[in-house]
Amino acid sequence: MFCLVARRYWGAGARSSRLWGRSLASQTDLWPVGKVDRFGGVSVRLQPGPQRDEAAFRSWLQGSIKRWREEGRIAVWMRIPITLSGLITCAASEGFTFHHAENDTSTLTLWLKDGPSKLPGYATHQVGVAGAVLDEASGKVLVVQDRNKTLNAWKFPGGLSDPGEDIGATAVREVLEETGIKSEFQSLLSIRQQHNHPGAFGKSDMYIICRLKPLSYNIHFCPQECLRCEWMDLKELAYTSETTPVTSRIAKLLLYGYKEGFHNIDLTMRTFPGVYSGLFYSLYHKELPATYETEQ
Amino acid sequence: MFCLVARRYWGAGARSSRLWGRSLASQTDLWPVGKVDRFGGVSVRLQPGPQRDEAAFRSWLQGSIKRWREEGRIAVWMRIPITLSGLITCAASEGFTFHHAENDTSTLTLWLKDGPSKLPGYATHQVGVAGAVLDEASGKVLVVQDRNKTLNAWKFPGGLSDPGEDIGATAVREVLEETGIKSEFQSLLSIRQQHNHPGAFGKSDMYIICRLKPLSYNIHFCPQECLRCEWMDLKELAYTSETTPVTSRIAKLLLYGYKEGFHNIDLTMRTFPGVYSGLFYSLYHKELPATYETEQ
Repeated sequence: MFCLVARRYWGAGARSSRLWGRSLASQTDLWPVGKVDRFGGVSVRLQPGPQRDEAAFRSWLQGSIKRWREEGRIAVWMRIPITLSGLITCAASEGFTFHHAENDTSTLTLWLKDGPSKLPGYATHQVGVAGAVLDEASGKVLVVQDRNKTLNAWKFPGGLSDPGEDIGATAVREVLEETGIKSEFQSLLSIRQQHNHPGAFGKSDMYIICRLKPLSYNIHFCPQECLRCEWMDLKELAYTSETTPVTSRIAKLLLYGYKEGFHNIDLTMRTFPGVYSGLFYSLYHKELPATYETEQ
Repeated sequence: MFCLVARRYWGAGARSSRLWGRSLASQTDLWPVGKVDRFGGVSVRLQPGPQRDEAAFRSWLQGSIKRWREEGRIAVWMRIPITLSGLITCAASEGFTFHHAENDTSTLTLWLKDGPSKLPGYATHQVGVAGAVLDEASGKVLVVQDRNKTLNAWKFPGGLSDPGEDIGATAVREVLEETGIKSEFQSLLSIRQQHNHPGAFGKSDMYIICRLKPLSYNIHFCPQECLRCEWMDLKELAYTSETTPVTSRIAKLLLYGYKEGFHNIDLTMRTFPGVYSGLFYSLYHKELPATYETEQ
């Protein structure tokens, strides 16, 4: 068996930043105090301020790395404000590499133990959400043809989720932006996972299709995004060749639900409180019969 | 209606890098040629090589930005090798910020138009997968108690997906690493979305629970990860208080499937070819009856 302690799931209980051990003495006031997390890693935050001398930084870093190794630390996390990015080159020459960077800060890491790094990686997936808006009265579903695609196939409107946005909210927002149709989240129908995604900077893509209920019917599609947009008979979409394999598949699934009951296809949503974080999260799965809620 | 062309879903058809427009003339051999993508953005790749003079870089960048604006470009993407990170500070003073960074390269962006940037963001989610390994013969399910949690509740073994790893493969690998049990992917049962996740560097977390079939039964759990590990009666797990809300919920769902048929709870997997990429992807949804495969 092969154990990867540091790379294992840093679930809701990880909170390494709250579990500092003893602080390490700083060499001078210019250089930050490292903090030790419960996995044995050291975190260092460089602060914007007086201009750092690169030679002095290198000397401090070399001394610190030596001490951290002696103390048995497993890794170093270093946050660097963008205005001090000149120091990244020094850190790189000591073996640091980028863990991630966003806006005005980069985070570099150095693995201090033998073998490959066991530090957890950064976000690996973008999430896109499409909305299958079905008008149950007419049996028609809202479809678009993208302007920017070489293959003009009918598909469900959708787009990338904004940071912190719930799956259903992305579907409703994207449908509105692309087609002008207002809608309401009903259920989650399907998820697709695709790796090495060219539109995701080589990362993975999780594409989720939701079932939505229309709240308006007059199309005002976005001409910059869509070539065409219409309400199409669901059965026609399910069996036309002018669509993508995923759209065709989900249209057939939706037709099954429309004819024989949506309980056959829906993953319904329920919100729970997080055990550690105090935040709430959404859980999606097939509806659970009430008889299973309590022990019989 | 509000259109966000650049931020819309960069799906399988985006491939901006393959659709270069005309190249922009470089100022000197030291500085890269920018390439124009079909959204009107300019991409610049700095190459490792002879030491760049920061003043000359600043002068080149200021002149280039002026020209790109005049040419109506919407944004600049700049890739900088870690060894040239000193240039990041110059770029930041011209308004660039980090889009992302990984290993030995950072990518910065500058939005050239009015208003907030409409460029697509980087990966927003980490993906964790748990495996509910149910032995149908005994009605027992494999559960662990984490070593690193303050609350020692029974839960399904699981962990973060490796880059490019399929959902089922993560579940099988993590179950093996934590418990020593070999297993086989059966279906996807549930997904959970949680934002501002402390274990995800503030990003979102997608947690997926799979149903697995055991291929071995003798537990050899990882003592660095687990405090306890055992085969527990599924009904006991479904109604014990010594578990997390998600585990309890999914145990009830699994009990429903065990008693009344797994077709009630399973999302089955099917693999499709990508329309543009030539790669394959996995799609998960409720089983579609064969009668819907072809038009009646």
